[in-house]
Amino acid sequence: MANSIVVIGGVACGPKAASRARRLDPTAEITLIERGELLSYAGCGMPYYIQGEIATTDELMSTPAGVVRDAAFFKNVKAIRCLGRTLAERIDRKQKLVEVVSLESGEKSAIPYDKLVLATGADAVLPPIPGADLKNVFRLNHPYDAEGIRTAVTDGCQHAVIVGAGLIGLEVAEALKARGLSVSMVEMMPTVVPALLDADMAYHLQKHLGAKGVTVHTGTKVASFEGDDTGHVTAVITDTCRIEADLVLIAIGVRPNVTLARDAGLDIGDTGAIKVNAQMQTSDPDIYAGGDCVENIHRLTGQPCYVPLGSTANKHGRVIGDNITGGNTTFPGVLGTVIFKAFDVNVGRVGLSEKDCVKLDIAFLVALTPGPDRAHYYPTAKPMVLKVISHAQTGKLLGVQAVGAGDVAKRIDIAATALSYGAMTQDLAELDLAYAPPFSSAVDLLAHAANVIDNKAKGVALAISPVGLKAKLDAGDDFVLLDVRSPKEVAAMPFTDARVINIPLGMLRTRLAELPRDKEIITFCKISVRGYEAQRILNGEGFDNVCFLDGGLMAWPYPMTAAVTK
Amino acid sequence: MANSIVVIGGVACGPKAASRARRLDPTAEITLIERGELLSYAGCGMPYYIQGEIATTDELMSTPAGVVRDAAFFKNVKAIRCLGRTLAERIDRKQKLVEVVSLESGEKSAIPYDKLVLATGADAVLPPIPGADLKNVFRLNHPYDAEGIRTAVTDGCQHAVIVGAGLIGLEVAEALKARGLSVSMVEMMPTVVPALLDADMAYHLQKHLGAKGVTVHTGTKVASFEGDDTGHVTAVITDTCRIEADLVLIAIGVRPNVTLARDAGLDIGDTGAIKVNAQMQTSDPDIYAGGDCVENIHRLTGQPCYVPLGSTANKHGRVIGDNITGGNTTFPGVLGTVIFKAFDVNVGRVGLSEKDCVKLDIAFLVALTPGPDRAHYYPTAKPMVLKVISHAQTGKLLGVQAVGAGDVAKRIDIAATALSYGAMTQDLAELDLAYAPPFSSAVDLLAHAANVIDNKAKGVALAISPVGLKAKLDAGDDFVLLDVRSPKEVAAMPFTDARVINIPLGMLRTRLAELPRDKEIITFCKISVRGYEAQRILNGEGFDNVCFLDGGLMAWPYPMTAAVTK
Repeated sequence: MANSIVVIGGVACGPKAASRARRLDPTAEITLIERGELLSYAGCGMPYYIQGEIATTDELMSTPAGVVRDAAFFKNVKAIRCLGRTLAERIDRKQKLVEVVSLESGEKSAIPYDKLVLATGADAVLPPIPGADLKNVFRLNHPYDAEGIRTAVTDGCQHAVIVGAGLIGLEVAEALKARGLSVSMVEMMPTVVPALLDADMAYHLQKHLGAKGVTVHTGTKVASFEGDDTGHVTAVITDTCRIEADLVLIAIGVRPNVTLARDAGLDIGDTGAIKVNAQMQTSDPDIYAGGDCVENIHRLTGQPCYVPLGSTANKHGRVIGDNITGGNTTFPGVLGTVIFKAFDVNVGRVGLSEKDCVKLDIAFLVALTPGPDRAHYYPTAKPMVLKVISHAQTGKLLGVQAVGAGDVAKRIDIAATALSYGAMTQDLAELDLAYAPPFSSAVDLLAHAANVIDNKAKGVALAISPVGLKAKLDAGDDFVLLDVRSPKEVAAMPFTDARVINIPLGMLRTRLAELPRDKEIITFCKISVRGYEAQRILNGEGFDNVCFLDGGLMAWPYPMTAAVTK
Repeated sequence: MANSIVVIGGVACGPKAASRARRLDPTAEITLIERGELLSYAGCGMPYYIQGEIATTDELMSTPAGVVRDAAFFKNVKAIRCLGRTLAERIDRKQKLVEVVSLESGEKSAIPYDKLVLATGADAVLPPIPGADLKNVFRLNHPYDAEGIRTAVTDGCQHAVIVGAGLIGLEVAEALKARGLSVSMVEMMPTVVPALLDADMAYHLQKHLGAKGVTVHTGTKVASFEGDDTGHVTAVITDTCRIEADLVLIAIGVRPNVTLARDAGLDIGDTGAIKVNAQMQTSDPDIYAGGDCVENIHRLTGQPCYVPLGSTANKHGRVIGDNITGGNTTFPGVLGTVIFKAFDVNVGRVGLSEKDCVKLDIAFLVALTPGPDRAHYYPTAKPMVLKVISHAQTGKLLGVQAVGAGDVAKRIDIAATALSYGAMTQDLAELDLAYAPPFSSAVDLLAHAANVIDNKAKGVALAISPVGLKAKLDAGDDFVLLDVRSPKEVAAMPFTDARVINIPLGMLRTRLAELPRDKEIITFCKISVRGYEAQRILNGEGFDNVCFLDGGLMAWPYPMTAAVTK
């Protein structure tokens, strides 16, 4: 008897599992069930469709060779039976049947399975906010939503408000700004992308959004949406202000679709997503699940986490395809890797953040290393700020975050690879990374960060974080802020505070008499390399209360004027 | 007594070792000896100076903050005594003295050391070719050489010949082409960059050079250089042709400067470079060496190799700086990672090539996976060809090569990181790499390649290499070449051979009768994904002599017309 495989969900993991199964088992009977019409679309491309960089949603559903992945494609190429506009209503685990209903005809039927795959995805969260059902209030779940937003723009919408400054919100903010709309963002938490970046890194992104004309309201809650007689949205009311709006996107996160699984009695994890083992099996060994409806194991903590991503869904699909055709393949888990582009900056993170470490009660060391992403003399070099987090006791690499116009993706991927092998932070300094001026510096920022952490661990480098210095400045503490930049640099980017003394690094050894020996000295420069050198020089000369500002002014997220001047 | 440290060589490793030592030991007496005038310059930036992308050689000697790293800089900032234009003539290991002579005054002296560091670098090889001493015949050793070439261009040179199609040769070819010169390259070996890429990958680069107007003569030996009455070069005479030239660059490789070390009786390795242990100590425990004058251990083979690079020199410098001030730091070796840009393509490699594997008698599997470097629907996506080499028995990752306009650097660095941990090839498919359409595909090319190798190892995917198919075509073998692309694609990029049958993949299952069951069938498409799918379909339908062309037409390095047509 042929192996009967039923797959529920036709976006990423589902089609992948079905296709892989077909390639491995030419005789299997494979049925793919999808509640919508569309199959195998690139959901991550929707913001670019809204922006107009991608002309039609067809492009999101095409193979690289330009073939649209529709039901005919799956039938002809893969010999997979596709049931579109079909809802899976119930799983009968005893009889091994899936009960489905056609959304076209209302006809019900039951499909028998030997192996069942749940790839039911996730839906954007719809908060219980009054007015959320007004016209031109969108979520971004589906290419239809993207088409709706694009139509609203074409119809003349001018003032967009995006609720939630997460990944999707930021991508759509850029798309709408490019289409000429005014864009405001409302975020409940104190910083943008609060789930992804630590505050010190998120500030750099927020600054950039401001520079690009996006008004960001952090720490702000939406109370309601107002509409006009025609039922169209006209304003967003928050706990602090009223923002005019004719287009609203609610992008406060997604929630896994687990109803079918829960109703069937399958285990649901604490994250709210379906629990699976390394083989992607649910608590029923004949039912597999993957993609945005399942939770993953974090490779660093060993704990379940919910990080829905298209790349992960594809990996799940392949593992499932193997295992439902007699294979035994495992999925090793995730690292919480995320990357996105927001206007001219790239933002990425992998592993644990400082916030995560605090939550998990892990003692850590941090390096903040801003700098160019390739040889500083190479014309296309672009800046970025890198943050590397290391385990204080074991020296293990814990996480990396990066924000900037520079090549963030490469550093995040190097870190993701290293983290997969339980890397020590110092390993990053020893990797034989590809070096040539158009691509990197002789000492890559990652290697530099690892060296900074090595110096900190050995007590050679003594630093204060931007957050720490800001607190001292605001508290009006008495100390010396030693600026070791050249007069030209100081003139171009002054740091205004009465506590600042400027002695260029090259003169420091001859002008030591200008510095007090009874006060704390905090040194700084543009990127912290000279600040550190100054700290070492002063230590060598017997100054014993010296540290440098981590990351220098390039990593300083606050205004260059201190809040309090003596 | 203060630790007396003497460092010979002022370019990369030397200044790094000296600076690191200073930061760790404020009381050490540190002397830096350099035969030239310049200190701490970015040698890798010289081609960009020739091109004019960098205005002055000063930029190559500046810190990111714009401070020139000259003797005054080292004295004022680092309290390091610099002796420029000073030649170290002899090491007296018994007395622990370095005998030096000032190239300005001729004065001789002896400098005592507790720890000595050799960072004597490498020089470009000057082959014994008649006429190599003519004017406007250059090597590229030093910023002076770059200035000489730039002056020759400014003076009106029009026809450049570059001897050696290695990394430096290619970078300068691009620079000179950009300056408007005609450029020919003469390479003794059968392909360009023979030390870096396998032939199947080198062909893609060679094709691109041709498209950019560079005439490449491979398999060609230079016999002599001709000059005119004024002693200027006028032509390059090879074993096959005469090439007009008023500017010649000889770039056939570099040789480590080991005279001082050899004369002092220090161990020299089989590579011709100085032998050092993991602490970067020579056979004399008080003498360290690093940078382009030493050999490295290859992390995969455990064998010594000679791969001089600025990035490695910097790492050596830090390790040496630690160890000459009482630390115990080790250098783990290299992976032969190389990257460069040649016009619009990026070229990279890491680990072992197919050639290396043959030499080392390692059985291997290969995946050739061309494709876009990010989501294929994203507007900035650019193509590349990736080659992944895996150990046939152990499944370990052995090496990666890549050529193309796409983001080669990221893939090479991911592979370099994975190789540092003894990665299995399949690991590449399981890494949680950063995914978003502007940066990568949901299934990255590296993951795809790992999956292809997994399929090959399991006997699911059966492929023939481009080299293998070319041989069969040329031999006039009888088989079917099944092109499964769409008619539109075939029309745009036809593959002309009488053995070709075109059945688009979507029709294959219904048109099986058109295919012979008694002949070998070789399937192909643009990138090999559909070619592989066709192989699986045919296998499922009982065709048992089927394979697909690895990498499809995008990885096919030969003309699209077969040499022999029936």
